[in-house]
Amino acid sequence: MDINKKALLEHERLKGKIGINVKFPVKNSLDLAIAYTPGVAEPCREIARDRNLAYKYTMKGNSIAVVTDGSRVLGLGNIGAEAALPVMEGKCLLFKQLANIDAFPICIGTQDPEAIIETVKNISPVFGGINLEDIEAPKCFYIEERLKKELDIPVVHDDQHGTATAVLAGLINALKVTKKRIEETKVVINGAGAAGIATANLLLKYGIRNITIIDSSGAIYKGRKEGMNSYKEEISKKTNTCMEKGSLAEIIKGKDVFIGLSAPKVLSTAMVRTMNKPIIFALANPIPEIMPEDAKKGGALVIATGRSDYPNQINNSLCFPGIFRGTLDSRAKKITDEMKIAAAEAIASLIKPTRERIIVGNLDKKVVPAVSKAVYKASFGQNNRNQ
Amino acid sequence: MDINKKALLEHERLKGKIGINVKFPVKNSLDLAIAYTPGVAEPCREIARDRNLAYKYTMKGNSIAVVTDGSRVLGLGNIGAEAALPVMEGKCLLFKQLANIDAFPICIGTQDPEAIIETVKNISPVFGGINLEDIEAPKCFYIEERLKKELDIPVVHDDQHGTATAVLAGLINALKVTKKRIEETKVVINGAGAAGIATANLLLKYGIRNITIIDSSGAIYKGRKEGMNSYKEEISKKTNTCMEKGSLAEIIKGKDVFIGLSAPKVLSTAMVRTMNKPIIFALANPIPEIMPEDAKKGGALVIATGRSDYPNQINNSLCFPGIFRGTLDSRAKKITDEMKIAAAEAIASLIKPTRERIIVGNLDKKVVPAVSKAVYKASFGQNNRNQ
Repeated sequence: MDINKKALLEHERLKGKIGINVKFPVKNSLDLAIAYTPGVAEPCREIARDRNLAYKYTMKGNSIAVVTDGSRVLGLGNIGAEAALPVMEGKCLLFKQLANIDAFPICIGTQDPEAIIETVKNISPVFGGINLEDIEAPKCFYIEERLKKELDIPVVHDDQHGTATAVLAGLINALKVTKKRIEETKVVINGAGAAGIATANLLLKYGIRNITIIDSSGAIYKGRKEGMNSYKEEISKKTNTCMEKGSLAEIIKGKDVFIGLSAPKVLSTAMVRTMNKPIIFALANPIPEIMPEDAKKGGALVIATGRSDYPNQINNSLCFPGIFRGTLDSRAKKITDEMKIAAAEAIASLIKPTRERIIVGNLDKKVVPAVSKAVYKASFGQNNRNQ
Repeated sequence: MDINKKALLEHERLKGKIGINVKFPVKNSLDLAIAYTPGVAEPCREIARDRNLAYKYTMKGNSIAVVTDGSRVLGLGNIGAEAALPVMEGKCLLFKQLANIDAFPICIGTQDPEAIIETVKNISPVFGGINLEDIEAPKCFYIEERLKKELDIPVVHDDQHGTATAVLAGLINALKVTKKRIEETKVVINGAGAAGIATANLLLKYGIRNITIIDSSGAIYKGRKEGMNSYKEEISKKTNTCMEKGSLAEIIKGKDVFIGLSAPKVLSTAMVRTMNKPIIFALANPIPEIMPEDAKKGGALVIATGRSDYPNQINNSLCFPGIFRGTLDSRAKKITDEMKIAAAEAIASLIKPTRERIIVGNLDKKVVPAVSKAVYKASFGQNNRNQ
């Protein structure tokens, strides 16, 4: 049976991949008096006195909302809130199973940015963090920015930062096995959506100096007019400092790294041949920018994809459970670049990399403990913690 | 150790009385491909084609939101969203344990009715029903009305309808054991908040014809000017048809039933003495309108309270789990009066009543199956079901 058919049957059988777990079974009227009235009034009174005590007496400190408007789900596009729910349930399942975080799906039935922001703010009292998911660019940037500013709990758009962190983790090892120096490495990022721009920002922060982002209008450079938005304008000031112009085929020449966060089959074997000891991250899902066998023909030294059926799967599930575990444990108010870099370095450090294997497996049990510990540590010393 | 101290310690130990349960543990990459990418795309596509298939492939059909703004929590008043969370967790716990419903707390950080309505509408795609809780009157009426009109899933404010249903269940048996006829019974309801008005409406629907509601300005009658709102005005047209005016002490004379949904110790033994074979439901919590021993001195034949340490506890936990179970099972769009009356009759029928015992225990395992079956049956034949 093929995987789609099997997935459909399992979803029908389960009717929900997650549910509610009762941590205090009520067996008699004493239990009821403790968990419900009249005893429950006591923690209520305490929290009414000091809101922060919600972390002490309720689920808040271990709960996150996985929030989407269904506007850009997987490779399926804008399928709406209800249709996004199976993905969000899957995400919540992984949060619980991998990191023991109680994540609940919030699929929002409006696609208006202001309404999304208001809704998330309004439901935030129950949650210790907000994971934004599958919201289209550029509004995802704006929504995340506003929520980060206006909430005192960590907010992260996983398609941006989970992906950026996973890419950096893979890249650290890819550079190592190809003996390239960070500050001399020339990177092309194909795709200027949520993941592309966030990856550029994190790689810059990590010390990569030469990055060119390409979108459907070609290389993004400072002052370009066509197809821009304020987020592309901002990133154009920090990338492509040589002001290269042109198509992917033109820009890719002589570059060290191709990071594809874009569309199927846009990179050809011929293009790979023009690169310098190529590192290829072809992460479009399910069909990558170039199939691994074709990249190899072009002389690629390291090849990674987003797929589980090829070696070197770069997937944000390596990142989000451990990042949120460490963040919740430290009561950090923000997930900073330092915390993401710490996560990437922790992931990279879990294996002794070779060209054939630059990244640890998604479900490897070492990942979450290593990432959460690193993130926890990196969250200190930045005036970044709630009381 | 007293119950408050014990409750505080248990809440601190648990840090959340509910959490997330994983129904499909991901053990290997095949599991991951089924629960998450790429397999999850298949149910997403199906639901994108027909939103109603969310009931077939996701948690929606068994999930409800327990929604509050924390504006009227237990006897604690307006303590806000965070401080209301322990109560909402308790409610969710009971939904799961008693009726296997996956209920999640949504504590809303605004008390503006329009913002609450918008927020609940925006998060509704994940849920098969909405249980409003501990929202103050009169805005609770307005919020419920609007949401009922604008959502295609059942919406119920439990403080109104759960309470009304529990009162009716108790009253059915109280009338039986005191041999009073429904249509001749004279009822005083003390309290014109959420529970008082909803109880009056349900008793009217059941066939009680003589009901007088009393608030802090005395008996409510048609045309009264002081202390009215649109909801009191509406109920004034259907109750107190004899246009009685005056205080509780004046109105209670000769009446059969006192239903207190108000404040501690407002009913005296002397007042009970003026009644006709008195049935006393003194439901203020934790201190009732009259203590049972004082009601007895006044000649009360049947006495019920909201407390677990006296006989005849009238509590809405008898109702909400089974009502929502039956409603979710039938995919009803609304919870109608017929469904509430069916629930009350089912609860009443579970015991052979005596003056000392008119109502079954809260945690009795017979309650949810009986209520859900009755509600399920009553939901048919009213053009009230989703496909």
